[in-house]
Amino acid sequence: MEIYLDNSATTRVDDNVIELIEKVMREDYGNPSSKHMLGVNSEKYLREARERIAKTLKCSEKEILFTSGGTESNNMALIGTATANKRAGMHIITTCFEHPSVEKAADFLEEQGFEITRLKVDGYGHIDIEELKSKLRPDTILVSIMFVNNEIGAVQDISAIGKAVKADNPKTIFHVDAVQAYGKYEINPVRMNIDLLSVSAHKIHGPKGIGFLYIKNGTKIKPLILGGGQQKGMRSGTDNVPGAAGLGLAAENAYKDLAAGREYLSRLKDTLTDGLTEMGVKVNSQKGELSAPNIVSATFAPVKSEVLLHALEDKGIYVSAGSACSSNKKTAAASDTLIAIGLDKKQADCTLRFSFSKYNTEEDVRETLKALQELLPVLSKFVSK
Amino acid sequence: MEIYLDNSATTRVDDNVIELIEKVMREDYGNPSSKHMLGVNSEKYLREARERIAKTLKCSEKEILFTSGGTESNNMALIGTATANKRAGMHIITTCFEHPSVEKAADFLEEQGFEITRLKVDGYGHIDIEELKSKLRPDTILVSIMFVNNEIGAVQDISAIGKAVKADNPKTIFHVDAVQAYGKYEINPVRMNIDLLSVSAHKIHGPKGIGFLYIKNGTKIKPLILGGGQQKGMRSGTDNVPGAAGLGLAAENAYKDLAAGREYLSRLKDTLTDGLTEMGVKVNSQKGELSAPNIVSATFAPVKSEVLLHALEDKGIYVSAGSACSSNKKTAAASDTLIAIGLDKKQADCTLRFSFSKYNTEEDVRETLKALQELLPVLSKFVSK
Repeated sequence: MEIYLDNSATTRVDDNVIELIEKVMREDYGNPSSKHMLGVNSEKYLREARERIAKTLKCSEKEILFTSGGTESNNMALIGTATANKRAGMHIITTCFEHPSVEKAADFLEEQGFEITRLKVDGYGHIDIEELKSKLRPDTILVSIMFVNNEIGAVQDISAIGKAVKADNPKTIFHVDAVQAYGKYEINPVRMNIDLLSVSAHKIHGPKGIGFLYIKNGTKIKPLILGGGQQKGMRSGTDNVPGAAGLGLAAENAYKDLAAGREYLSRLKDTLTDGLTEMGVKVNSQKGELSAPNIVSATFAPVKSEVLLHALEDKGIYVSAGSACSSNKKTAAASDTLIAIGLDKKQADCTLRFSFSKYNTEEDVRETLKALQELLPVLSKFVSK
Repeated sequence: MEIYLDNSATTRVDDNVIELIEKVMREDYGNPSSKHMLGVNSEKYLREARERIAKTLKCSEKEILFTSGGTESNNMALIGTATANKRAGMHIITTCFEHPSVEKAADFLEEQGFEITRLKVDGYGHIDIEELKSKLRPDTILVSIMFVNNEIGAVQDISAIGKAVKADNPKTIFHVDAVQAYGKYEINPVRMNIDLLSVSAHKIHGPKGIGFLYIKNGTKIKPLILGGGQQKGMRSGTDNVPGAAGLGLAAENAYKDLAAGREYLSRLKDTLTDGLTEMGVKVNSQKGELSAPNIVSATFAPVKSEVLLHALEDKGIYVSAGSACSSNKKTAAASDTLIAIGLDKKQADCTLRFSFSKYNTEEDVRETLKALQELLPVLSKFVSK
């Protein structure tokens, strides 16, 4: 038995995506910058991928910039806009529980003299829009807020945030890290007042090593990677054609029957949440629309997450302690996110994340609950005081 | 008939590489940062890939940093060392005909206040080591010189350059862009005094979207992409496991029977060079060891490269005008490299690059020569004066 419940870390690649990638590598391996037919064919794959993605966001395909993944997209969104808009101001607003690729980019900019305001979140991970409004200033050039938190699934009211940002100053750039949201939600950047949106392919059953940054037409932003001038100079380097093609198809797959897919995931989440609650486990993620349909964070104190993770692994059930986005494996540093929503260090160290995909079943959830019912009483006994 | 002679732009992926990538995507799709078995399995692929690469360079696997490709490797080599070593000095030496990913990074650093010296090259694209020696200064922190030029195949005497750099100051960092050299030559960074070496997978029958930077243990360099701290904080972002695995295997493939492979390519090159010379065509690449075994640059004036390229394409023969590294398709800007070796603008505009791989045959070369013999007299007649 193998039950993969770590889909917020990464996902299995869809079969038709694998087939497409294989075809491109085997037959259509040209360099899109080459002028002959093999190059032109490769360019067609890029265009098709952009069109498929543009359809999901109801934007122009010219607004899709391929990157090497979510981390590069987030880095570029922050560093690229900050350096391009320095003259307009040096104030940036973000939250206290962003993904490290936003956090570290903000830290880097702080070292360069930018001022960073980090908004608090409440016990379920939501920012206070009134607080955001009060922090907006004439020199605020960028607001960067994640759509779905990767550790607990908190969903921000992106439409309301976008509205508040633009009401204060239409020129303030609004960046949304949508790595955990894309493929789960209808995202309309124009209606939501989003200027920049980061997406990663491997979170939506696409390949690793590719992602995109939606850049609203007219947004002032500088490239991060310089060279041959590919993608209109905004991201140099030979285009990753098989990756981009795979991302395009994975995006199309993800947006087929979006609402039904979300509902399916929600049912799995509810079953797990209810089962955990019955067992007396503290669940950190909300049910309902204010939290992602596929993420359940739960605290099993006094059982350490490391211990429980490996006990579940022995039964073929794969979950995460916190998130897999940080490669920090050896030290058991308490998650910033969990601390931000009010857990103490001990609770944070006893927290697991379960995350579903369309490939999971109700049976997977029942098996997981059964395993926990067996394991928890035993493991609780052996907790070192 | 299809004859692909654009292997310096990109190469067909080896079959066993495709199979490995497919296997990783389908079965071993875990995130190496996950603590469960699927994560641990993924990490094994990364380790194996690093070991395979380290074997080819006779270095430690800890010195291999995966990047999204040659462009990112080159960007990081320049920008990452410049910012990390600013205090030691702000002078950088490179050549006048590097790949755009080095050139533009150098231009960027120049804007930031660094001083860049660009060495001249002779008619076959070789730098003068005496000139290099005369330009080395106490504040020179970095020397960046490409191993094989991507447009004409000129091979620099990297060992002699490394020696000269380190004799002047052992602390000066020596970066080599080996994108066109790796897989063709034995490269021993320790013996050649190389501190940083850039490589791209898709030039050696590996996948697009992945490459590596060899970083000699102890070299002071800052990361370009910030986030979750993957690869010891030097390159954040979920590791591109299938890409890295594919790169590792492609590297192993490339270094099997290296000398025999180089000899095979040289024979193809010699056949083409001799045939072109007999036809009265000006060949810009040398035969012999001072030029890459797989690259032939030739000037067909008065026939424009664009015209000849498409005429060859009609016959199923794919070549490049200049290089495919620049995505500038619409303007026919004369290549900096060709101007640097003394061609005039008109000659540069009439120059094609033929580049071979192990998948080409003598038959391919004969067919290409036959096609040129047919086309050139006809096309010469229609040249607009």
